[in-house]
Amino acid sequence: MISKPRGTRDFTPEEMKKRRYVEKKLREVFESYGYEEILTPTFESFELIAKKTGEEIRKQLYVFKDHGGRELSLRPEMTSPVVRFYLNELKNYPKPLRLYYFANCFRYERPQAGRFREFWQMGCELIGCKREVADAEVINLAIDGLKNIDVEFSLEIGHLGVLRGILRKFKVGEEEEVKIRRLIDKEDYESLDKYLTEILDKEKRDLIFNILELKGGKEILEEAKELLKDFPESLEAVRNLENILKYTYDNYKINFGIARGLDYYTGMVFEIYGKKGAKQICGGGRYDNLIETFGGEPEPAVGFAYGFDRIMMNVDIEIKEEKYLVIPLNENLIVKAMEIANILRKKGKKVELEIMGRKLRKALDYANSKGISKVVIVGEKEVKEGKVTIKDMESGEQKLVDIEVI
Amino acid sequence: MISKPRGTRDFTPEEMKKRRYVEKKLREVFESYGYEEILTPTFESFELIAKKTGEEIRKQLYVFKDHGGRELSLRPEMTSPVVRFYLNELKNYPKPLRLYYFANCFRYERPQAGRFREFWQMGCELIGCKREVADAEVINLAIDGLKNIDVEFSLEIGHLGVLRGILRKFKVGEEEEVKIRRLIDKEDYESLDKYLTEILDKEKRDLIFNILELKGGKEILEEAKELLKDFPESLEAVRNLENILKYTYDNYKINFGIARGLDYYTGMVFEIYGKKGAKQICGGGRYDNLIETFGGEPEPAVGFAYGFDRIMMNVDIEIKEEKYLVIPLNENLIVKAMEIANILRKKGKKVELEIMGRKLRKALDYANSKGISKVVIVGEKEVKEGKVTIKDMESGEQKLVDIEVI
Repeated sequence: MISKPRGTRDFTPEEMKKRRYVEKKLREVFESYGYEEILTPTFESFELIAKKTGEEIRKQLYVFKDHGGRELSLRPEMTSPVVRFYLNELKNYPKPLRLYYFANCFRYERPQAGRFREFWQMGCELIGCKREVADAEVINLAIDGLKNIDVEFSLEIGHLGVLRGILRKFKVGEEEEVKIRRLIDKEDYESLDKYLTEILDKEKRDLIFNILELKGGKEILEEAKELLKDFPESLEAVRNLENILKYTYDNYKINFGIARGLDYYTGMVFEIYGKKGAKQICGGGRYDNLIETFGGEPEPAVGFAYGFDRIMMNVDIEIKEEKYLVIPLNENLIVKAMEIANILRKKGKKVELEIMGRKLRKALDYANSKGISKVVIVGEKEVKEGKVTIKDMESGEQKLVDIEVI
Repeated sequence: MISKPRGTRDFTPEEMKKRRYVEKKLREVFESYGYEEILTPTFESFELIAKKTGEEIRKQLYVFKDHGGRELSLRPEMTSPVVRFYLNELKNYPKPLRLYYFANCFRYERPQAGRFREFWQMGCELIGCKREVADAEVINLAIDGLKNIDVEFSLEIGHLGVLRGILRKFKVGEEEEVKIRRLIDKEDYESLDKYLTEILDKEKRDLIFNILELKGGKEILEEAKELLKDFPESLEAVRNLENILKYTYDNYKINFGIARGLDYYTGMVFEIYGKKGAKQICGGGRYDNLIETFGGEPEPAVGFAYGFDRIMMNVDIEIKEEKYLVIPLNENLIVKAMEIANILRKKGKKVELEIMGRKLRKALDYANSKGISKVVIVGEKEVKEGKVTIKDMESGEQKLVDIEVI
């Protein structure tokens, strides 16, 4: 027996109903903010994907050649493809450009709770606006989406400019900065301390750790400014964050330790955590250089993505639906039963037809096992009088009904 | 500048709106027949995909190895994955099992009108019923779907048992039968004639061509029976088809030349053609041996798939939507403008916020260029009185409205 590839999933009808419901509720919120859906191919040229995804993710790519020898990769995330699409076809659209997507992505990860080799992301990109209200808009949108599906969450917001400002002043090179950011992202503070000891003296290390440990509400911004008073670039980042927070909901925690696993972020970054399963359910931030890196005119941008599968772990819903089964009592009544089924379908009902040639008793057993709520029994005598019997499977109640008004 | 991989597509917001609309209208019909959605991984083990897809398609597979050395293939169609899923997890669900899917598939084809390397299929499988009413149900469902999106079409129905019965009696081997079916599928009658001349005498060839040319409504069934009176297996197939057609709509043409490109069909087969673009927009049929071939208990099945992209070529719709733009007249009004946008969003409206710091004139230009229908102007004086100005972009009409009742 052949099974599905390791790390992937099949979704049953029950799961798909829940997923489609949550998808719909999240779409509603993206669209309510004026975001419009786009879609890109499932694979991209390897060159595009390798450019800005970060070393960690690069190791996890599904890479292959097509018959024409082109090197392709299944997409591991959506921001690079969206930027590529933007540069190819959307760059002359009026700005700001508000785009969203719902797409499957692929990473060869060790399967574990909340991590799959094929996983879904729903996210957005707001292209063309460098102002703080744009950062705030995507944060608020992310929160409103989660509220719309009653997911409990906590939000942490940081700013890459704070650490960058410190490291620049300390003359730490870009390569070292990437390494430092990666250790922070992994919360591996032991290795971070060891590494910083190699390149910086104690006073400088202390400042970095003081900043990383500074977590809390709006009140910590003054503390940060005090610590960073000799670091103009960092100060500017704090002020940028302060202005963004003027426009957001108040339920955040500031955390300058948010580093994000992707290499393209430049400013504000945020992460949202759920209560169940793999913790992080959303991540995003500002990436003002990516479009230029890919060969376009410089254009500021900010966005985020939900980890859709992880959101599903945090959603508690039950989908109830009314379903009909129409049962012809003999072969000659099949055509009539089809007609009746069609009348109900036209009214928006979900209607199965009994097609197995089962006797009534067996057909009712089937209806029970499928959770069908209403059964329409099509009998010879009743049909002659223009009627059918409708049985409510829950109450057991039966009544004769005119076919005309079924 | 990096571009998308050859033969693939990006979908703009305008295209996605149309696609999502058509998807929704087709889903409605599948669900009205009691079909439930499932989803399988984008790639499968190569072994599964290679098993029953037919030589032609096998040449077009995207095959690759994952980091664990497993040989994988992007799915070229959905029936094999659905059967695999059925055998892994769904086989104990009550029968009949009505499943549908909407999924992207991949074939390395030469790009041409209506053929893409990544394309979407929406289709269904009805598992567990061998009766003719099941065949009729999926044909009717396919038609009702197209009617629900106002697509003009023509339907042709055939039966693989007719030709098979002839070839068996003529002692033509299975390999030869596959070759013959392939030539018929391509409508390459010249090569077919040449090939048949090698293996059959004139009288036998004539019978085959007579059957292939016999096309029309229900009335040709009697002619077929007469031609096939010495071919019991073929006769049985004609009778099977005759019974199926008792339960279908009447707008079909019988065509025994329908051979289908996939190797797993066993009985009734059908194809639906549109008027625009690549002709075939739907194909399906009965495949009673596939589940057993994949290692399961024998279980009859019938299904079809729409070529979603080809359907899109045949759909003529325009999506109109009402969109709002909320414009704060200065920086201090941004928070208020956000509140007003949220009030409208809660009412189900699509609302963009002016975030570029534009003056009113420029903001109205933007609204025009985006086809925004209503603009809400948030001014200092009006807000103090609890009011905002709403401007209808089409009529140019402006009025002051209480924020409370916006």
